[in-house]
Amino acid sequence: MDITTLRNKLSQLGQEHLLEFWDDPELTDDLRRSLYDDITSTNIEEVLKFFETSSSNLNNTEKVDERMEPIPSELFGSVTRSGKNLDRWYKDGLKQISQGKVGVLLLAGGQGTRLGVKYPKGMYNVGLPSEKTLYQLQAERILKAQELALELTGEKGVIPWYMMTSEHTKEPTREFFKQHDYFGIGEEDLVLFEQDMLPCVSFEGKIILDQKNKISRAPDGNGGLYRALGNCKILADMERRGVQYVHVYCVDNILVKMADPTFIGFCIDKGANCGAKVVEKAYPTEPVGVVCRVDGHYQVVEYSEITLPTAEKRSEDGRLTFSAGNICNHFFTTEFLKSVVNENESRLQHHVAQKKIPFIDGEGKRILPEKPNGIKMEKFVFDVFRFSNNFAVFEVLREDEFSPLKNSTKSEKDNPTTAKHALMSLHHRWVLNAGGNFIDSDGTSIPAIPRCSNTPIRRTKQSHRLVPYVKHPTPTKHCDNSRRAHDPDGYPVTCEVSPLLSYAGEGLDKICNGNKFCPPILLNQANIIAEKQETIANN
Amino acid sequence: MDITTLRNKLSQLGQEHLLEFWDDPELTDDLRRSLYDDITSTNIEEVLKFFETSSSNLNNTEKVDERMEPIPSELFGSVTRSGKNLDRWYKDGLKQISQGKVGVLLLAGGQGTRLGVKYPKGMYNVGLPSEKTLYQLQAERILKAQELALELTGEKGVIPWYMMTSEHTKEPTREFFKQHDYFGIGEEDLVLFEQDMLPCVSFEGKIILDQKNKISRAPDGNGGLYRALGNCKILADMERRGVQYVHVYCVDNILVKMADPTFIGFCIDKGANCGAKVVEKAYPTEPVGVVCRVDGHYQVVEYSEITLPTAEKRSEDGRLTFSAGNICNHFFTTEFLKSVVNENESRLQHHVAQKKIPFIDGEGKRILPEKPNGIKMEKFVFDVFRFSNNFAVFEVLREDEFSPLKNSTKSEKDNPTTAKHALMSLHHRWVLNAGGNFIDSDGTSIPAIPRCSNTPIRRTKQSHRLVPYVKHPTPTKHCDNSRRAHDPDGYPVTCEVSPLLSYAGEGLDKICNGNKFCPPILLNQANIIAEKQETIANN
Repeated sequence: MDITTLRNKLSQLGQEHLLEFWDDPELTDDLRRSLYDDITSTNIEEVLKFFETSSSNLNNTEKVDERMEPIPSELFGSVTRSGKNLDRWYKDGLKQISQGKVGVLLLAGGQGTRLGVKYPKGMYNVGLPSEKTLYQLQAERILKAQELALELTGEKGVIPWYMMTSEHTKEPTREFFKQHDYFGIGEEDLVLFEQDMLPCVSFEGKIILDQKNKISRAPDGNGGLYRALGNCKILADMERRGVQYVHVYCVDNILVKMADPTFIGFCIDKGANCGAKVVEKAYPTEPVGVVCRVDGHYQVVEYSEITLPTAEKRSEDGRLTFSAGNICNHFFTTEFLKSVVNENESRLQHHVAQKKIPFIDGEGKRILPEKPNGIKMEKFVFDVFRFSNNFAVFEVLREDEFSPLKNSTKSEKDNPTTAKHALMSLHHRWVLNAGGNFIDSDGTSIPAIPRCSNTPIRRTKQSHRLVPYVKHPTPTKHCDNSRRAHDPDGYPVTCEVSPLLSYAGEGLDKICNGNKFCPPILLNQANIIAEKQETIANN
Repeated sequence: MDITTLRNKLSQLGQEHLLEFWDDPELTDDLRRSLYDDITSTNIEEVLKFFETSSSNLNNTEKVDERMEPIPSELFGSVTRSGKNLDRWYKDGLKQISQGKVGVLLLAGGQGTRLGVKYPKGMYNVGLPSEKTLYQLQAERILKAQELALELTGEKGVIPWYMMTSEHTKEPTREFFKQHDYFGIGEEDLVLFEQDMLPCVSFEGKIILDQKNKISRAPDGNGGLYRALGNCKILADMERRGVQYVHVYCVDNILVKMADPTFIGFCIDKGANCGAKVVEKAYPTEPVGVVCRVDGHYQVVEYSEITLPTAEKRSEDGRLTFSAGNICNHFFTTEFLKSVVNENESRLQHHVAQKKIPFIDGEGKRILPEKPNGIKMEKFVFDVFRFSNNFAVFEVLREDEFSPLKNSTKSEKDNPTTAKHALMSLHHRWVLNAGGNFIDSDGTSIPAIPRCSNTPIRRTKQSHRLVPYVKHPTPTKHCDNSRRAHDPDGYPVTCEVSPLLSYAGEGLDKICNGNKFCPPILLNQANIIAEKQETIANN
């Protein structure tokens, strides 16, 4: 350990405080060693350059409003307006999957702080009848997409699952999948890699000490993806497998359509090397970033960056002009990712998040500050949009595809209950659209949009009781009116369909059409087997 | 008291149980008298006829889906699509007001059970900086609409305020207004009248006893309006005043635009005798009734009556085909109301609401049932749409005009907090659009869409502190980040504008443009006076 050289170097960089506790009697030789290693393994010049650049952006109050344009309509697809193209895109996407050209990439470096759990968010169980975790739902959707591709083409393609974790999430994630036999995914097809951590810096540009012998660090944002793709040789893995299209998504969306064939087919059809799936912004001040063009370059303008007149601007059809709400659901060609990693990554600037960062004070005491005392530096995954010259945007329905799990149940929005209900609502609609019907425990029909409170109920005629078609997967909780009235979110139809049975509502007719279901229900392959056996027994 | 005749009559009608406790030793002569009066003042034949008709509808499970059509586009106006017409309609509406041709009619017979208060809902204070109640907000909006009409035309018209209350709400409402000097409304321009009560009936068609000497009764629904308009001579009052257009609304919408000039001008322009203000349905299974045509007649199809395929149907532009969400905000010509009251009222059928109705059991004990044991019969205010041959629908923005106060804070939706925040969000936008800006207590700009959680914050450059323009109306609660992060609804900008200052955002430029406000702020006339005095003092 050449402490003199290090001290000199730090002094030149204005970071000599990192050695403030070097002579502290509490620091053993081992701890001193670890501090030395921690500092010398850090590219401090680079960190300070990041700080300087991102801080100078801080003072950039220039509004981009006047330079903003919406996505041109020819690059814009929509599940509600693209009509017959949808089926073509869907099939095309499945063909790409069957040829092994499609990979999915999960952004899972977050620590789930707001959700209030200490383990990776993907391991969260929102309380579905099946008790499946987000990871399991995602794994099974991958398997089903592969199966659908096989059915359509006769060819079996594998969708490799890349997963960007962080220091905090990598090992528990790996262990979790191992414990669950990878939920049927091939072990070699689950590729975990780790994003970088960056030191946290005080507002004055001093790197913060988390312990006397340890620099405070935080993951470098979901845009850390591009650095990690290179560092961890993930691009090479993609090329080896022949993956040409990558569907990138965030772990917290319980409705995420893994390797969505329609979205992939659409992007390919548009010749896009980069694309974003979006939902229509619900109202002008909804806190959601919008995908648009600024000075001809594609980008996400965050909600805090937009002025009210621009947010309220409407097109002649009455829709918000800037309506393409970003849901962190992207398409990239491997080629595009390669160009980003090899050429453009360093041009991405960090965003600054002011945080309350625990630190060691002058007396060596660890302090949990009550106010923000420093910054974390993060890149955003969508910041690469501006490098794309062939961009495309695909609008989907929020109720079908987007319900993020961000907060604990203490919060009213985006919590485990809203996520669970979003999934059950979707599956309820699948069953209805497949010709199924729902009845109450006393045989009364449940309307498609069930009454959720003490509003008038018109009872339908129902002279006989019907035996529930599917056994209750949990202790029977019948949906009587009292339960409906007390369901805080007003969604009384407990209905879940296994992803292994249906990816997006397809293929349910044979077990739903004409049948009556008494919730709670869980439709999975076991039901089909049971039905077959029953049919055999009856014949 | 001719008890024998009464007993015989009741016996013929199958209601002899109403006299079950006649000889009960607990019943004094006075109580017996009150029971006798209660029964004989009730048109039992009529009640039983209502029961029979509405019960037969119960078994009508026929879906109207196939006969449903959307409102024809030529009868459909929209704040987002009607462009320059909006200004014309607005001015025309104000002219009608200035000529005294416009009245407002409040439906306020509800008991606020779900809100959990014992007094009329209009007396509720959601916790705005001004502490104003719903009634006061409405009163002040009436005054301001009159003022705007006067400013435009030079003529002063009065908007009479009709208020349909029920047994439970009439006296407290009258007392409340009296205590508050009618909030500036002329006492003679506030016309309270009472809707009917109807006996509650068991599923078997027996009128329910609430006490040994008292029939159980409930208000006859907001569609009881038409009967009450005739019985209480309200139509005559309207004619006497020369009121030709009536804007009917529900007490619980905190954003309601009283006598909305644009809506009134629009309906008149369309030659409508009946019209509905609607908001766009947000998603197919949103529990909201939709205004549409069935067999050529206008009607509201309730959410529980629609099948999923119809609810999910979309037009080529991607919008839901049945998107006109009813918000109980209607326009009627007095002529139309007259024809309803005089000719069509009796053709309106009651809807049936199954309820838990307290009753006296065979042993004379009062029971609070745990399950629905009977029905209340209600008419709906919108059921008269079908009598209109000149109908019109006007779509407005939910975030500007609709936020109902239905539930207590125990519920997540439509509660005092959501109502308060909806109003503050609207007023915040008014101030921004009038050129005002908001700053934090440390002088930092607050973005138009404020960050509401621990997402990254980019600070804007702000070299000096600014003194808040408006004094804090409540003990200072600065909007620092910690409060933002903990605001459960994520709406941190506490901003209220008195209706006496602005009806719909107009006229705020002079006190907002270029100014910086540090919330909480309450803009009212006092501010203007203060500003004038300051200007004088400075000159």
